[in-house]
Amino acid sequence: MSAPSASYSVTMRVILDKAARIGALTTAIGDAGGAVTALDVVEPNGHGMTVDLTCNAVDEGHSEHLRDAVNAVEGAQVAVMSDRTFLMHLGGTISVEPKVALKTRDDLSMAYTPGVARISMAIAKDKSAARKLTIKRNTVAVVTDGSAVLGLGNIGPEAALPVMEGKALLFKRFAGIDAWPVCLDTQDVDEIVRIVQCIAPVYGGINLEDISAPRCFEVERRLRDLLDIPVFHDDQHGTAIVVFAALLNALRVVGKRMQDVRVVVLGVGAAGVAISKLLMTEGVGDIIGVNRRGIISPDDETLDVDRHWLAEHSNKEHRTGPLAEAMRDADVFIGVSGPNLVTEDDLKLMAPNSIVFALANPEPEVDPALARRYAAVVATGRSDEPNQINNVLVFPGIFRGLLNAGAKHVTEDIEIAAGRAIADAVSESELSADYIVPTVFNSSVVTAVAAAVEKIVTQVAN
Amino acid sequence: MSAPSASYSVTMRVILDKAARIGALTTAIGDAGGAVTALDVVEPNGHGMTVDLTCNAVDEGHSEHLRDAVNAVEGAQVAVMSDRTFLMHLGGTISVEPKVALKTRDDLSMAYTPGVARISMAIAKDKSAARKLTIKRNTVAVVTDGSAVLGLGNIGPEAALPVMEGKALLFKRFAGIDAWPVCLDTQDVDEIVRIVQCIAPVYGGINLEDISAPRCFEVERRLRDLLDIPVFHDDQHGTAIVVFAALLNALRVVGKRMQDVRVVVLGVGAAGVAISKLLMTEGVGDIIGVNRRGIISPDDETLDVDRHWLAEHSNKEHRTGPLAEAMRDADVFIGVSGPNLVTEDDLKLMAPNSIVFALANPEPEVDPALARRYAAVVATGRSDEPNQINNVLVFPGIFRGLLNAGAKHVTEDIEIAAGRAIADAVSESELSADYIVPTVFNSSVVTAVAAAVEKIVTQVAN
Repeated sequence: MSAPSASYSVTMRVILDKAARIGALTTAIGDAGGAVTALDVVEPNGHGMTVDLTCNAVDEGHSEHLRDAVNAVEGAQVAVMSDRTFLMHLGGTISVEPKVALKTRDDLSMAYTPGVARISMAIAKDKSAARKLTIKRNTVAVVTDGSAVLGLGNIGPEAALPVMEGKALLFKRFAGIDAWPVCLDTQDVDEIVRIVQCIAPVYGGINLEDISAPRCFEVERRLRDLLDIPVFHDDQHGTAIVVFAALLNALRVVGKRMQDVRVVVLGVGAAGVAISKLLMTEGVGDIIGVNRRGIISPDDETLDVDRHWLAEHSNKEHRTGPLAEAMRDADVFIGVSGPNLVTEDDLKLMAPNSIVFALANPEPEVDPALARRYAAVVATGRSDEPNQINNVLVFPGIFRGLLNAGAKHVTEDIEIAAGRAIADAVSESELSADYIVPTVFNSSVVTAVAAAVEKIVTQVAN
Repeated sequence: MSAPSASYSVTMRVILDKAARIGALTTAIGDAGGAVTALDVVEPNGHGMTVDLTCNAVDEGHSEHLRDAVNAVEGAQVAVMSDRTFLMHLGGTISVEPKVALKTRDDLSMAYTPGVARISMAIAKDKSAARKLTIKRNTVAVVTDGSAVLGLGNIGPEAALPVMEGKALLFKRFAGIDAWPVCLDTQDVDEIVRIVQCIAPVYGGINLEDISAPRCFEVERRLRDLLDIPVFHDDQHGTAIVVFAALLNALRVVGKRMQDVRVVVLGVGAAGVAISKLLMTEGVGDIIGVNRRGIISPDDETLDVDRHWLAEHSNKEHRTGPLAEAMRDADVFIGVSGPNLVTEDDLKLMAPNSIVFALANPEPEVDPALARRYAAVVATGRSDEPNQINNVLVFPGIFRGLLNAGAKHVTEDIEIAAGRAIADAVSESELSADYIVPTVFNSSVVTAVAAAVEKIVTQVAN
C-alpha cells in the first residue's frame, strides 16, 4: 500500500459534541492509515465545537474510508468532506492580469485607443519591436494535442488543460515566465504544425507538451525549421537534459567516464529517443534501446524513422533478445517506460557500481529500495525518494535564458550547457549517491541554467 | 489643431539651476500649446532642482516642439524625455498569474503531478467538467488576423497584438474576464475557422476582433455553426448593440418611434452591415446603406453576399446617387466610415429633429459642433464629446453574462436584450440630448447587461 499523499488530501468539517473528542479524531485517522496535516477550530458550539480536519489519504477510496472512521468516533459527525485537489482546481489555476492600472480616461487612452495605435504603427514599421512593446518578450505557449498526457494516454485537449495550467504555474513560479495553455482539438501533424505557426506571433517561445511519439518528432522538427522562436518539446529534451545532468553527477560518484559506460534505455518513446541522442552526442559509445518487445533492431519494420535511426546507431555489439540481454554488464539503466518492468535478476546482471534511473511515474520500473541493494546510485521521478529527476529543473531556466537572449532557436549546445549547469548546481561537498541533482525548490538552478543558455545564444550571435 | 491628449503625453526630466524657474517652465509649455498634467520634484540640486514634468501634446512632432520650448527657458535643460504611452506598453500590458500558491511540495503535488491527474481523469470522463475545473469557465480568446486593426488597416498580427492586449485589459477591468490575445499569421478564411475551432477547448467564448469585411462575416457564421461556445465579432455586434442602445434613447429624446424613422447608414463594412440588420429586426422600415460610391444597389455586382443582401432588403424607395440623395428627409444618420464625409448641406437635407451619430474615430464624419447646429441629438466615438458611443459598453457585460450562464451561442435576442439594458442604464431623469448613453466607467452597466444576457440564456435553456 502506498503512503498517504497531499494529492489525495481531503478536508472534513466535523461537528463534535465535546471539545475533548479531538484526540479521538486524530487517533481514528491514524489508525485508518491516514495522516493528519492540519486541524483548525471553526467555532465553538455549546459544549462541543466544529473543526476542519485536513488529512492525506492513499487514494479516493481511502478518503471515503477515513470519513467512515471519523463518523465512527463517538460524538463526532462529518458535515461535509471536500477534496483539496479539486478545490484548488475550481475555475482553473491561472488568470490573466493587468500590468497597468486603468483608472481614468487618460489611462484608457494610452493602454487602448487612441494611444495604442502609435504602438501598433511602431511595430508595423519594424516587426522586431514586438519583442519590446508587447507580451511576446516574456510569453511562452504550452502546446498539446492531448494525445499523451502524463501517464494517462490519449485523453484529449479538454482533459489536458489542467496539466497545461499546472505547467504555466510552474513557468511563472520558477522563472517569472507568462505561459499560456494551447490545447488543440486535432491530432493531425500537418494541422498542429500549421496552427502553431499561425499563433506564433504572440509568443517568444513554444513549449510542446504531452504529444505522443512518433508524431512529436515530426511536429518539433518542422516547427523548428519554420519558426524564428525557440521550439522545445519538453517530454523529449527537458527529460534528456535532466537525465544527462543526473548522469554526469552519478558518474562522478561512481568514478566512471561517459565514454566508457554501457547504457540501457528502456522505453524508446519521446524521452527515450531524446536521452539516447543527447548521450551519444556527449560521448557515450554503447547505448542499447529496449522496448516492450525487447532490444530494438534496425530490421524491425514497425519502427518509425526516428526510432529506426536509433536502432541503427546504437547497440554496437548487436545484441538481441529481452531486457536481460541488454542488462548484462550494463553500467547504467535508464527507464522511461512503465511500472515494475525490471526484475531483481535484471539488476544482478549489471556491472559493478551500476547506476539505476527508474523514472516511470508514479510507479518506477523497479522498487528503488530493491535497486539500492545492487546499484551504487539510484534515482526516480518521485518526490518522496532521494534523487528526484524532474523536468522542472530544466524548462523554467532554459526558457528564461532563451527569452532573455531573444533566441530564435534551441540547439544541442544550449541543451548540453543547461544540463551541465544543473549538474554544477550540486557542489563537490554536497555530491553523494543520494544527492546527484538539486531539489526543484533550489532557486539558484533557474538562474544558473538561464545564464548558461544566454551565454551560448550570445556567443553564437556574435 | 486638435487638443493635447494623454495618448501623446510625455514626461521630461528637467534640470533647473534655480527652483524659482518652475513657473517659467509651465508657462512655456502652455504657450507652446501643451498641457501640464503633473510636476514632481525628483531631487534638490544645489540652488536648483531636478523635476519630472508631465504634459500632453497634440502629436509626436508637437512633443518635440514642447521639449524645445522647455530647453529655451533660461536655466532649464531637458535631460531625457520619455513617451508615456510607449513606457506603458514596454513588455506588454497583461501577464499570466497563479491563482494558487506553490510554496511546498504538497502544493506542487496538487496543482501539478501527480494530483492533477485526477482532475484530468474527471474531465476525460465528462468533458463538461472542464467548465468547472479549468480556466475555460472564465476565459475568452480575442482573435484577430490583423487585417483591419483600429483605423490602421491591414498591419498584420504582430502590430495587432498591443490592441488585443488592450482589449484583454478592458475585459478584466470591466468584467473580471480572463481574455487572451490570439493574433493569427494567416488571413485565409478556411484556416482562421479551422484554427479557432482547434484552439476552442481552452475557452468559454470567442471574441473576433479587427478582421476585415467581408471575410469577417463568413468567419463568424462558420464558427457559430461549428462551436458550442459563443462567437461574437465585436466590430459587428458590439457596435450594432451600442448604436441600437443609443438610438433607443435618442428617439426618446426627440419623441420619434423606431418603426417611423428613415435611417442612413454611411459605411457598409462590418459595423454598418450589423447595425442595419439589428435595426431592421427592431422594426426600422427604411434604411439606406451608402458606401463611398453612393447608395448601395442590388445591381452592384461587386458587393459580396452580405452587402448584396443588405442592398436588396433596404432602401424601400429605391433611391440612387450620392449621400445627399439618401440624406433627404432622413431622421437618423449613422456614420461608421471615415473623417469629414458629411457636409453642412447634407445636414440641412435631414428631417426636423434629426439624430446624427458620427462614429468614425478619431475624426468623425462631421464636426460635432457643426452637426449640433442642425441635429437635435449628436453622438460620436470620442471621449472628449458628450454621448460617446463605444463598444466597451457592450462586450464586457455581454461576455460576463454568456460565461455566467455557460451559454453555447449568442443570438439576436441576446444582443437586443443587451442593447436595451444599456439604454435603460440611463434613467428618465438623466436622459437628455447630451446624455443618451452611460459613460464607460459606469460599472452598473456591466452588471445590468450581464443580468439581461443571463436571463435570456436561461429562458432558452428551460
